[in-house]
Amino acid sequence: MTDFKRTRSLFHMPDGVVYLDGNSLGPLPKAAIARMQQTMQAEWGGELIRAWNSAGWMTAPRRIGDRVGALIGAEPGSVVMGDTLSIKVYQALAAGLALVPDRKVILSDTGNFPTDLYMAQGLAKTIGQGVTLKVVEPEAVADALDDSVAVLMLTEVDYRTGRLHDMAALTRSAHDVGAVTVWDLAHSAGALPVDLKSAAADFAVGCTYKYLNGGPGAPAFIYVAPRHAERALPALSGWMGHAAPFAFDLDYKAGSGIERMRVGTPPILALAALDAALDAWEGVSMQDVRRASIAMSETFIREVEARCPELVLASPRDPRARGSQVSFRHPEGYAIMRALIDRGVIGDFRAPDALRFGFTPLYIDETDVLKAVDTIEQVIAQRLWDKPDYRRKKLVT
Amino acid sequence: MTDFKRTRSLFHMPDGVVYLDGNSLGPLPKAAIARMQQTMQAEWGGELIRAWNSAGWMTAPRRIGDRVGALIGAEPGSVVMGDTLSIKVYQALAAGLALVPDRKVILSDTGNFPTDLYMAQGLAKTIGQGVTLKVVEPEAVADALDDSVAVLMLTEVDYRTGRLHDMAALTRSAHDVGAVTVWDLAHSAGALPVDLKSAAADFAVGCTYKYLNGGPGAPAFIYVAPRHAERALPALSGWMGHAAPFAFDLDYKAGSGIERMRVGTPPILALAALDAALDAWEGVSMQDVRRASIAMSETFIREVEARCPELVLASPRDPRARGSQVSFRHPEGYAIMRALIDRGVIGDFRAPDALRFGFTPLYIDETDVLKAVDTIEQVIAQRLWDKPDYRRKKLVT
Repeated sequence: MTDFKRTRSLFHMPDGVVYLDGNSLGPLPKAAIARMQQTMQAEWGGELIRAWNSAGWMTAPRRIGDRVGALIGAEPGSVVMGDTLSIKVYQALAAGLALVPDRKVILSDTGNFPTDLYMAQGLAKTIGQGVTLKVVEPEAVADALDDSVAVLMLTEVDYRTGRLHDMAALTRSAHDVGAVTVWDLAHSAGALPVDLKSAAADFAVGCTYKYLNGGPGAPAFIYVAPRHAERALPALSGWMGHAAPFAFDLDYKAGSGIERMRVGTPPILALAALDAALDAWEGVSMQDVRRASIAMSETFIREVEARCPELVLASPRDPRARGSQVSFRHPEGYAIMRALIDRGVIGDFRAPDALRFGFTPLYIDETDVLKAVDTIEQVIAQRLWDKPDYRRKKLVT
Repeated sequence: MTDFKRTRSLFHMPDGVVYLDGNSLGPLPKAAIARMQQTMQAEWGGELIRAWNSAGWMTAPRRIGDRVGALIGAEPGSVVMGDTLSIKVYQALAAGLALVPDRKVILSDTGNFPTDLYMAQGLAKTIGQGVTLKVVEPEAVADALDDSVAVLMLTEVDYRTGRLHDMAALTRSAHDVGAVTVWDLAHSAGALPVDLKSAAADFAVGCTYKYLNGGPGAPAFIYVAPRHAERALPALSGWMGHAAPFAFDLDYKAGSGIERMRVGTPPILALAALDAALDAWEGVSMQDVRRASIAMSETFIREVEARCPELVLASPRDPRARGSQVSFRHPEGYAIMRALIDRGVIGDFRAPDALRFGFTPLYIDETDVLKAVDTIEQVIAQRLWDKPDYRRKKLVT
């Protein structure tokens, strides 16, 4: 059994806060502070340029990639860290399209996170030649798979509603029509069991600042199935993905396997924080995380529906069809979330009207959930959200 | 007059080290330690997701971009931080090509840093349609400019030899034939006066871990001339470059001006270190930096040539034709550099045979230079490099 008391003790949490936004930015792992200091002072400060060898900086993207890979059912050596999720989407898509060169369609759905769609639009425009992005409703994806589709690009867990796609089934359907898949695991990695290998996924990408607690803007990851690794070509062919980066050849030659998905110089400070954050997963069973997350979200839905009838559930009611977050709709959702945050219950708002709450058993438990519901009930029942200041939009919501 | 005693006191330097590799990785600015702690503990730890507003995280790429811009003669609001230099090269090239849609040639030279060439090759392959990268010798660039050239892409200072291109003259020549320019300032920013505005440069990119001391893998920057800012389109169209990132539209709409060159979630921890590092430039005149750098490199060349005749100058002899680094060739350059590093004189090696030394007046002075020459003389005269261990290649050199 996973010891969630232990994992909870590993994170810094401000007094008076119930943090239900770890699905947007995970909290600070205490170990990251000392690790960062070590990396800055002993490595950067003390070793200077030598640290690329002596402190293992050069190999960090692969080493940490394997740690992330272990949490998502990836084969060792199939994941590498770097860049942002947007960049990794572009890489995976470009490589996927090149594997099915006779087809022109990238299929995705309206539940995908917009940046995935934007990057696909940018790539399609850059390639030209009739490559297009086709976007359908999440329920229509399976039917839209036909032999025009080169790449099926989906986010497993919908960022607004938590609706969970069946990765294994959709991957099978994609393969049945000769398409390859790009799975975005932004709201999956660290949130629920993912088994890329069993699902026979082709490519996967994700960020690490949500459930993996790597810090604001932490590096992203990309997975390439070993069966594609030597055929998948990087459109973003940077020197760190070269077969011999320090030979300084004038022509690009792709490195072996997942190495070629590296692009520029790795972000060492950010990787150090992430590496420390991943320590929290030692001894954690993802099945236990899933059970605890479902228990909390079921409590949350039951209590909110009983005590705040104005809020309308936007997430699937069946927990097997949800990720680790729950959303409720309310026309004044933005102001309500502002009022909640002022009272220490931190979730977030997703336009146009969704209040989104993430459940993260590593540092949140049932007591937190009940405290949050008390505050939500109070804010709604007493219309505490009804203030001009709460309606005034901030830059980031 | 710039007070270099003061700037020197701002950096951590290990005892017994003469650091002539700030052109590869700048040393740790003492202020970065406290700033990182503040960002991690008070902002990430204490504010959690709220810090995107309350700590100014969301606007950091523009704010810090302006700080970098001030060091390279960029107009306010024309520079933004993010990603790596490789990614920024891709963005600038793609935008540049789209500004000259009837032409197919990217012109560059053999003195460009390889990743720039690799990214251009990847972009050309992705676009297809006859787009090609043409690479000539540095001296042949001006003659190779003709009306087939869409983009002239050059690194101002050659990473191996320090050879300096005339940015203003080549930009003029490029404009004369109807091409646009992409200038890589990796070895220029913080090394010598750069005036993008006066030179009428179209695009510029650079990294911040060298002379700007932002830390290993620190974020890169991109400059888009204000006259192009509303026409230059981003191929890497990520959500942070969207006109309304938090509207979560399904279709990409480019943000205004330089904002559209943002891609994914900004790397906040790395930006914090960089921001603190930039404090060192307050009150520093780039003309003074240049004067001091030339004085040191002239001393270095004179002394090395007098005392180590086995070393052959690989850099231009005229200081006006050099950046802030000096290279010498020797068939055993690799082993010699290993021997020097073991004795506290840290430079670096660039294949096949160049020993490279960077001069960085912010924290290095003439005394360091003379100490370095003493060690170089000793290593060469006594053949201290002649050991199997020094010949055995490490991963990174």
